[in-house]
Amino acid sequence: MSALKGACIFGQSGGPTSVINASAYGVIHTALQNPNITRVLGAEHGIKGVLNDRLFDMGQEDPKELELLKYTPSSALGSCRYKMKDPDVDDTDYKRILEIFKKYDVRYFFYNGGNDSMDTCNKISKYMQKVGYECCVMGVPKTIDNDLFGTDHCPGFASAAKYIATSCMEVYQDARVYDTGMVCIIEIMGRHAGWLAGAAGLATAYGAGPDLIYLPEVDFDMDQFLADVDRIYKEKGNCMVAVSEGIHYADGTFVSEAKTSATDGFGHAQLGGLASLLANVVKERTGAKVRGIELSLLQRCGAHLASETDIEESYMSGKAAVENAVAGITDKMVGFERSYEGGKYVCKTKLLPLTDVANTEKKVPLEWINAAHNGVEKPFIDYVLPLIQGEPALPKEDSLPRFAKLKKVLAK
Amino acid sequence: MSALKGACIFGQSGGPTSVINASAYGVIHTALQNPNITRVLGAEHGIKGVLNDRLFDMGQEDPKELELLKYTPSSALGSCRYKMKDPDVDDTDYKRILEIFKKYDVRYFFYNGGNDSMDTCNKISKYMQKVGYECCVMGVPKTIDNDLFGTDHCPGFASAAKYIATSCMEVYQDARVYDTGMVCIIEIMGRHAGWLAGAAGLATAYGAGPDLIYLPEVDFDMDQFLADVDRIYKEKGNCMVAVSEGIHYADGTFVSEAKTSATDGFGHAQLGGLASLLANVVKERTGAKVRGIELSLLQRCGAHLASETDIEESYMSGKAAVENAVAGITDKMVGFERSYEGGKYVCKTKLLPLTDVANTEKKVPLEWINAAHNGVEKPFIDYVLPLIQGEPALPKEDSLPRFAKLKKVLAK
Repeated sequence: MSALKGACIFGQSGGPTSVINASAYGVIHTALQNPNITRVLGAEHGIKGVLNDRLFDMGQEDPKELELLKYTPSSALGSCRYKMKDPDVDDTDYKRILEIFKKYDVRYFFYNGGNDSMDTCNKISKYMQKVGYECCVMGVPKTIDNDLFGTDHCPGFASAAKYIATSCMEVYQDARVYDTGMVCIIEIMGRHAGWLAGAAGLATAYGAGPDLIYLPEVDFDMDQFLADVDRIYKEKGNCMVAVSEGIHYADGTFVSEAKTSATDGFGHAQLGGLASLLANVVKERTGAKVRGIELSLLQRCGAHLASETDIEESYMSGKAAVENAVAGITDKMVGFERSYEGGKYVCKTKLLPLTDVANTEKKVPLEWINAAHNGVEKPFIDYVLPLIQGEPALPKEDSLPRFAKLKKVLAK
Repeated sequence: MSALKGACIFGQSGGPTSVINASAYGVIHTALQNPNITRVLGAEHGIKGVLNDRLFDMGQEDPKELELLKYTPSSALGSCRYKMKDPDVDDTDYKRILEIFKKYDVRYFFYNGGNDSMDTCNKISKYMQKVGYECCVMGVPKTIDNDLFGTDHCPGFASAAKYIATSCMEVYQDARVYDTGMVCIIEIMGRHAGWLAGAAGLATAYGAGPDLIYLPEVDFDMDQFLADVDRIYKEKGNCMVAVSEGIHYADGTFVSEAKTSATDGFGHAQLGGLASLLANVVKERTGAKVRGIELSLLQRCGAHLASETDIEESYMSGKAAVENAVAGITDKMVGFERSYEGGKYVCKTKLLPLTDVANTEKKVPLEWINAAHNGVEKPFIDYVLPLIQGEPALPKEDSLPRFAKLKKVLAK
């Protein structure tokens, strides 16, 4: 297919990360320079911005501010959690998207997100094919959860992992200063996959991390958990535990479920409060002093601890999406392939069919979880370690972060 | 008084900070080089280490590891929360301390802590004077709470303030990505003084911080709070709130009090869970999506965001304690005096009588809090800003923190 000429739309969707804007910069920066892309439009709040005709003209932004996106956490254009209906059931949204695409002569659509967002991206791609509207649709991966199918890892994961590992190492110092002992429970994001909770194992590998780590890939047993904690607490006088928010009993019930019944826009249960719940159980059962710490939003927006590798790879995934699209490729998501050259970690992009990645979750391999189901094995550490390397030169103003300030001029 | 010759004991007490070990290094490094100090002993878990004869011989540590103390958060020798009895009521502990001082020929005692620890230091100083045991006793300040009397500011405060401001700026980006709106409540440490909660105002001053800040210096009114939040949420579609853990109603009851009745070793109520309590109230009353975030231990051990100014001043306070003590000065705490030379912030040490600082709390001046009691004024920002300046060159190993590893050889 020869290169299409027309405008592009870029949108961000789902939970943000520390480096999702680095991918945005990869797309926007590359697209602005490409002669086949006549105009670069940024959708406000992802696909909702397309539906509502709220598109920013990215060409009007100051290039220096755009470059600061590399170090600005969270979705700069705004995100959404919007589940697209099956077009065979209700094609209202799809007709509206087509209308907007035609209005702005959009020939390139880049969508930056995780599982659910790739589902959106896939549905739009297939609809455009079906109605015969020529448009290259590319998914740009993003998720701290690291659970996208077919890619070695996901942009955003490594920076969250580095935040988690570093914070665990610091809390480890603090949570054992008194001679009175303490059980400290750290709650980490990850609904169905334990990649982030497992990253706490990096801290342990470097001598200052959790004694116990519980992942959602295996069933949680409260009695076994209490026995584990009790044993370590008696042995060491302290115990540090990392738990994934998504840990569940054998019947599938989330351990945290009793705490909240709220749901997010995609219909998932909104988790949280698990750390204090477990801390209370431990306190009741063992009498130990306890502290529950929820890393909450901090772990996904802690750009000051971002991995330089992650920033560069995020940029690279955005850039690759544009370069492949203008080469005529469509209906794909950019993924990563890892290799080692002379022992040195190397990451290259590859392309995955959107159909394959939409709604498929990649979990931590069971052989990377220890036999007792309370920690991770060395292959997990070897997998994560190269991803968190490198300290970015963070732009600062009076020793505080200097984030990108966008004008967000609406396209006419 | 001519210089005494003998051993010194250094101990750490109370809640740790990101930079308390920089003060430790200031004391230990300076003492190890001083010809009048024959031996440098580190007390395990503060005064408890003296009482239990658990003293480490700091001269046996690797100098390179000792230097890493500058970047290692939390009390490396262990801390305690131990309230000394009035010696006129029960002098058992004091006799024991004297016995240990004599055993090791201790002529210098350096105690590193906050209000309660300065009370301990003061009591020991007065006791030694009373029994005529020649020993220079010096307090080295430390507290993220910044509430020590008579000093411009306290080592440890600035690094926690920087952590809080930076984290607020990052969460600010994240907590407004969706078009569905959110009220985000961030709980910050500070039992009676609002210095740390006020530091969230730095984020606001730089365009990305809380809309509302509540300090414990003024009474909290739940109805006013809900009206404030409701107004901003309706105006902006989002609202970010910072609260000090110590906010209280007009009758003195802590807002968080219903949540826990546990107390720490000094008899203070152990606070926490306030963020989720307030988030729930806001959710019930306004129906808004809410999120409560407790910065918990993270804010006091986040050495990766330490202020270089704070590290250097912490070191300086420890060094000054030793230098003044060997010059024959006793019964003082090292404090800071701020001046501006050609507009540039300059900090020098001064000495304060231990009697004056023990158990006296310094609060945020009321004129630095806004009239509506929901924010801080510019003089507060001007006060904090110079303290958080500078990025330390953090020692890392594979992009993770490399903290000091001490041998902790018990003194014979």
